[in-house]
Amino acid sequence: MELPVNLMFVAEGEEELGSAHLIDFVRDRVGKLSRADACLAPGASQNINGEVSMSLGCKGVVEFELVCSGEKWGRGPTERAIHSSYAAIVESPVWRLIHALASMTDPADPTRVLVEGFYDNVAPPTPEDLELVDKLAQRLDEEALRKVLGVKHFYRDLHGRDLLLKALYTTTLNIQGIYGGYTGPLVKTVLPEKASAKLESRLIANQTTKETVEKIRRHLDRHGYTDIQILEYEGQNAADDWSRTSPKAGIVQATIQAYRDFGFDPLVWPYSLGSSPQYMFTKEPLKLPFISAGIGHGARAHAPDEYYVIEGNERVRGLADAEKFYVWLLSKYSNTNLK
Amino acid sequence: MELPVNLMFVAEGEEELGSAHLIDFVRDRVGKLSRADACLAPGASQNINGEVSMSLGCKGVVEFELVCSGEKWGRGPTERAIHSSYAAIVESPVWRLIHALASMTDPADPTRVLVEGFYDNVAPPTPEDLELVDKLAQRLDEEALRKVLGVKHFYRDLHGRDLLLKALYTTTLNIQGIYGGYTGPLVKTVLPEKASAKLESRLIANQTTKETVEKIRRHLDRHGYTDIQILEYEGQNAADDWSRTSPKAGIVQATIQAYRDFGFDPLVWPYSLGSSPQYMFTKEPLKLPFISAGIGHGARAHAPDEYYVIEGNERVRGLADAEKFYVWLLSKYSNTNLK
Repeated sequence: MELPVNLMFVAEGEEELGSAHLIDFVRDRVGKLSRADACLAPGASQNINGEVSMSLGCKGVVEFELVCSGEKWGRGPTERAIHSSYAAIVESPVWRLIHALASMTDPADPTRVLVEGFYDNVAPPTPEDLELVDKLAQRLDEEALRKVLGVKHFYRDLHGRDLLLKALYTTTLNIQGIYGGYTGPLVKTVLPEKASAKLESRLIANQTTKETVEKIRRHLDRHGYTDIQILEYEGQNAADDWSRTSPKAGIVQATIQAYRDFGFDPLVWPYSLGSSPQYMFTKEPLKLPFISAGIGHGARAHAPDEYYVIEGNERVRGLADAEKFYVWLLSKYSNTNLK
Repeated sequence: MELPVNLMFVAEGEEELGSAHLIDFVRDRVGKLSRADACLAPGASQNINGEVSMSLGCKGVVEFELVCSGEKWGRGPTERAIHSSYAAIVESPVWRLIHALASMTDPADPTRVLVEGFYDNVAPPTPEDLELVDKLAQRLDEEALRKVLGVKHFYRDLHGRDLLLKALYTTTLNIQGIYGGYTGPLVKTVLPEKASAKLESRLIANQTTKETVEKIRRHLDRHGYTDIQILEYEGQNAADDWSRTSPKAGIVQATIQAYRDFGFDPLVWPYSLGSSPQYMFTKEPLKLPFISAGIGHGARAHAPDEYYVIEGNERVRGLADAEKFYVWLLSKYSNTNLK
């Protein structure tokens, strides 16, 4: 029997290390890959209740670290922490970092970023997006999400459509971690020479990772924090562009049809809140539609106890059904003139 | 031969553990200790150039930790760090702590504390103090101090008398350390559930440790941070009262005379910038004058390689000379009717 479509496989085995070389792989095979019509990343999309979902893209992300050190500043302790009895006459890089950070967000609502132009280029939702959001809002199990996350209240207790719009169409400035000075048990009378904060921003179409870092740099400079360093981690998966695939793309329609044929009504996200290197396929030069979908259940991605269900039960399908689904999906895609 | 004074020894072997039980020792022996006229803490006061010094007291200190957690707040992640893709709709205890801290000091000069009433009760220098400060200003080797500390600039490049007045008569709000979320190498896309800052304030006469913590609490509450916890570490040397001994006290005058008899012109500090449990002897109920003095050289206090010079050389005296000095000092004290 002949396959109704041609298949090219991209097997990426470096995800847990940040997919540092995927961009090289794609760049070196542009000729071959550009002959494709669409990308399908098989995934176990069923949640614990058996519901299936699909995301037509993802947010971008840019991660960086802000470091305030006496060494760069030229004030405060420059070499090592000193005895804190000198705090009356020696300035503190930790306080400096705190005020630099505090200047970047609204004290009354730190999800509101005050960095000049931070929200420029954030594309508003398209009519297509809004349609998907409306549908999602009717089915989103907020209570289950809060429970899984261990979160009692979402931002301003938003829910439904408002919650989804905030989640999907707001860029973020999140602090992943902060550290400096003595962090062991109890207390220690030192005045530290340095403090750091690990930050990240999730990017919406049409933002770029570059512009975000540049705006942070400009903000720091304008507030007099020219000495505060921005450490970037290039080639370490600390930056991914956003990705979008139109709901009208053939592979999307074929996937929805295949889901329905298997008895599912999929939750269709305009894009996921997380980030991945999809953009390598969806942007220049390949510009392919990209969909991640599949039945079956797995979870705890990236964790040491990540799992995938092989046998299935009354709620989630096993590996055999997942395989059948992909066959069906490929057949749909070839039959329905959706390319 | 009979001693010209009576001696009582208090041997404190718990300093490195925070002298947690010294207060009990003193309390249980008030009757006996109150028969004393003065306290002498023998110390190796010679610096590396051979200069001797003495401090007529010390600053107080109060140390505490501010903790902002989603658990107490009721917002943000409450149990563990969550994936930072949710930062658009889940609030951040780290940002909250940063803004709470930032509200406490002046962004343009974080040595200026904005907590209401923070400088209340700070006694201005007495005329006696100012005399000592003027003398110190003439001899203080600022360049050497900067070098030892690894500090290129003191606060606002003050020097001489202004530097000393700032050092001695300003209470501080120092951050010993700050931590929260992911603090390992590179970056990690998490939204942390908690962040902490270890703080400390050095106290001037007539401040109390209690009032300082109360003011911080009131400040947090007034700014809406009622959920932010203040952890105190009682019985862990996280709080010491300040101590003062008058330059006119007999033991002070005897010490200065003894120093001079040995060929030294001492640097007399109205009090040291650091803190110690002297107040247990100088305040109610004992109210004894307390002086720490002695020739000889040692350094790296509290460090594993703390040392004391036994033999001496052309710059610093050895143990035998130090012993002779104490004998001479006791004899001075008994002879000169200084009690």
